[in-house]
Amino acid sequence: MSPEEFRRQGHAAIDWIADYWASLDDLPVRAQVQPGDVRRLLPASAQEDAEPFDAVLGDLDRVVVPGLTHWQHPRFFAYFPANSSPAAILGDLLSSGVGAQGMIWATSPAVTEVEQVVLDWLAEALGLPEAFRSDGPGGGVIQDTASTATFTALLAALHRASGGAARLSGVGDVPWRVYGSTQAHSSLVKAAMMAGLGEDAVRGIATDPVTQTVDVEALRAAIVADVEAGLRPVMVHVAAGSTSTGAMDDIAAVAEVVREWGVWLHVDAAWAGVAAVCPEHRDHLAGVEAADSFVTNPHKWLLTTFDCSTFWVRDRAALTGALSILPEYLRNAATESGEVVDYRDWHPQLGRRFRAIKLWAVLRTYGLSGLREHIRSGVELARHVADLVADDDRFEMVTEPALSLVVFRLRAGDGQTLAAMEAVNASGEAYLSHTTVGGRAAIRLAVGSWRTTRADVDRTWRALQRAAAQV
Amino acid sequence: MSPEEFRRQGHAAIDWIADYWASLDDLPVRAQVQPGDVRRLLPASAQEDAEPFDAVLGDLDRVVVPGLTHWQHPRFFAYFPANSSPAAILGDLLSSGVGAQGMIWATSPAVTEVEQVVLDWLAEALGLPEAFRSDGPGGGVIQDTASTATFTALLAALHRASGGAARLSGVGDVPWRVYGSTQAHSSLVKAAMMAGLGEDAVRGIATDPVTQTVDVEALRAAIVADVEAGLRPVMVHVAAGSTSTGAMDDIAAVAEVVREWGVWLHVDAAWAGVAAVCPEHRDHLAGVEAADSFVTNPHKWLLTTFDCSTFWVRDRAALTGALSILPEYLRNAATESGEVVDYRDWHPQLGRRFRAIKLWAVLRTYGLSGLREHIRSGVELARHVADLVADDDRFEMVTEPALSLVVFRLRAGDGQTLAAMEAVNASGEAYLSHTTVGGRAAIRLAVGSWRTTRADVDRTWRALQRAAAQV
Ligand SMILES: Cc1ncc(COP(=O)(O)O)c(C=O)c1O
Ligand SMILES: Cc1ncc(COP(=O)(O)O)c(C=O)c1O
Repeated sequence: MSPEEFRRQGHAAIDWIADYWASLDDLPVRAQVQPGDVRRLLPASAQEDAEPFDAVLGDLDRVVVPGLTHWQHPRFFAYFPANSSPAAILGDLLSSGVGAQGMIWATSPAVTEVEQVVLDWLAEALGLPEAFRSDGPGGGVIQDTASTATFTALLAALHRASGGAARLSGVGDVPWRVYGSTQAHSSLVKAAMMAGLGEDAVRGIATDPVTQTVDVEALRAAIVADVEAGLRPVMVHVAAGSTSTGAMDDIAAVAEVVREWGVWLHVDAAWAGVAAVCPEHRDHLAGVEAADSFVTNPHKWLLTTFDCSTFWVRDRAALTGALSILPEYLRNAATESGEVVDYRDWHPQLGRRFRAIKLWAVLRTYGLSGLREHIRSGVELARHVADLVADDDRFEMVTEPALSLVVFRLRAGDGQTLAAMEAVNASGEAYLSHTTVGGRAAIRLAVGSWRTTRADVDRTWRALQRAAAQV
Repeated sequence: MSPEEFRRQGHAAIDWIADYWASLDDLPVRAQVQPGDVRRLLPASAQEDAEPFDAVLGDLDRVVVPGLTHWQHPRFFAYFPANSSPAAILGDLLSSGVGAQGMIWATSPAVTEVEQVVLDWLAEALGLPEAFRSDGPGGGVIQDTASTATFTALLAALHRASGGAARLSGVGDVPWRVYGSTQAHSSLVKAAMMAGLGEDAVRGIATDPVTQTVDVEALRAAIVADVEAGLRPVMVHVAAGSTSTGAMDDIAAVAEVVREWGVWLHVDAAWAGVAAVCPEHRDHLAGVEAADSFVTNPHKWLLTTFDCSTFWVRDRAALTGALSILPEYLRNAATESGEVVDYRDWHPQLGRRFRAIKLWAVLRTYGLSGLREHIRSGVELARHVADLVADDDRFEMVTEPALSLVVFRLRAGDGQTLAAMEAVNASGEAYLSHTTVGGRAAIRLAVGSWRTTRADVDRTWRALQRAAAQV
């Protein structure tokens, strides 16, 4: 592709995106395809000859769009949003254009230094502890996902608890134990599986039946019993916003429990953490000063194109101790001087693109004031949903609304609840997801897209009301 | 940003990239900054108010570009290329614009199905075994990096070898052992560290002093000795193109060794694998039919913007057995039908963007014929470098050229070799990296960018000659 052709096709790709966005409101949110439908539209083999890029754009319309569930649709309320903004998209485009690979500081210094600065900015904006700043012994890094962040937190915890033995001789037969509530995200169990501890090493601690938050006394009792039985508690995972209902574990209370045994405290605020850009939405992070590590996903609610998961540690030496490798071909003066950080040692991957540009672009083009406005509008719309639920006798709230997440059900029962949700999803008008709370089915409605208006929420609610009348 | 503003800024971002590329030839390849130089140019805190996107573009020029080592520069010959093409960049831009999250098939079916098809295409184009195709028990997935691929291969190997016990109760005190040559990429050791086995579980097998390939008899002896000592071989890593010199282990011979003990055979062809789009560059993959898993990085030499690492397994059940999780909120009919794959269970991450579009765009806009031409030109330029080395008595080849990688040194000695390289790197005219072979320093020159011409190679060579005259 010549430079002129790149400009032409690049402008066409930008315009395709703008047109796609403009069409979203009229598209069914959930893909209407069956397994194999997309596949069948594609040739069996790669072709010999070059095609113009326009052919790819054409196939996006013909093959891809009908097979998409539209995460950027204004009435996408399922899971948590993967809310992407124009600024983030263009920021990431520039990262692709630059094409730098920042595995170590020396391979492209700006990749590392911009990331350090932007993570310092965000830590401050969220009211996170000074200890997470890059100018002390801690620091932040962009991980791809919260799953990876939690996994690396566990590796760092194992490194610290084993006094460095784990990296040399493995986790061995030490009976390590990891703790989280029964509402902890499944990435905790996955982390234990990947780290060689296995699922059985994870203790699912009971939660309060109303708030769904971890029962701190039960946690304490579990740790005490394990220690007495000769087991080795290594990490406690705190959900600052659980996936199912947005339950906010009491970080400060958990911190008191773990302090006694020197257990690593990891705070998983994947979804709810970014709400702390608003001073009035920081209560759920009270006690975070005691955390050893903290993760939140700008790729969920903070307008940053997937993937972008921001992760901080109080003591980066534990993390890099667990993950560092230094082959000859990466030896260099800057690393040896100790004046720089090499992000290769902060995550599983070696190579890394310029991850920070998109987050930098978001922080600048919205400004903190714009980001607060965005978060506040999500919270406000969720309160509006809660009001709608309260106003219709057929529905009831399951838990208190948590920031921008509302969990409710039909009083009629589980079957009706799921059938109503499925009817709305199948209609394509909106898209919601489900969970179970206390053994009963519930509908989750998570607001968070910058495209979602009150009218979108109201329309979704009317669709749910119609469905409720029919199930 | 309004739709009109997005179009305007999007076009500006595209134009910024085209202008950046046009300026590359005049920029020093290696960044000329010291630790902290980039950081100092940025404010201490995020700002309150929104800034126009143009301000970000302006700071790219002012702050970022001087702090970059330009991986897309036509005279970047260090490490391996992270060679990015216009088609890949635009493909990934479209992925950002669509903003779909394909953690499971049901969350956006096209994300999964396009990836399956494109990986089938690439497997066929590289002459990989039928067993890797998605219509049998195997299949392919896009991992972020080869490091992650090798890590997941090890998890799958542990799952199979432990009969599923590892995911439940961990790696425990079973004395698992992992094998690779002393030239195996450092990601193998890192994988063992992350999987809970520790560095000590990795046996570095001796290599042939001339070819730097694994000594298959030494490998056999190590496995036999370990088995006799009651240890448990779980995976053998074969380098199909080592990082240091491009050494090609004999896959077929290693396969015979591992067959006897049912050990997982993982082929790491991160760099050299993609060369197999050319039938004449497949010799190094002879025997790959026996591999349990195989990784190659389109983000290195196949024109696909970082990150894009293609990974195949013969038996996907081993991989998903090691990694699957199924929380309530992700239960769905498609998953339960068994008719689809959920890529969440193929890698550490849960969430994933639409990873395949950029590779799809590359395969289509170059066509297989265009990709072959690209690979061939890299090989040809490397041969030209080898000729230049042969023609100058001050230099000598260290190993035979491997595809597009040439490893050579100054006869004068290690100090002179490294000083000459450093002089060229410091001048900014070209960028090379070093390694050690048989305890002696060597310069690596890896071709692979679509921008690199014979004139770039000649200019780099003249710079090396000038440096050689001065050290
Ligand atoms: C042979 C080999 N394997 C693995 C890797 C790691 O690549 P990645 O950055 O994709 O993890 C490299 C990087 O150069 C390599 O050369
Ligand atoms: C609380 C919590 N933690 C972790 C995750 C995993 O996120 P990721 O896809 O970034 O790994 C999620 C996803 O919804 C989550 O809600």
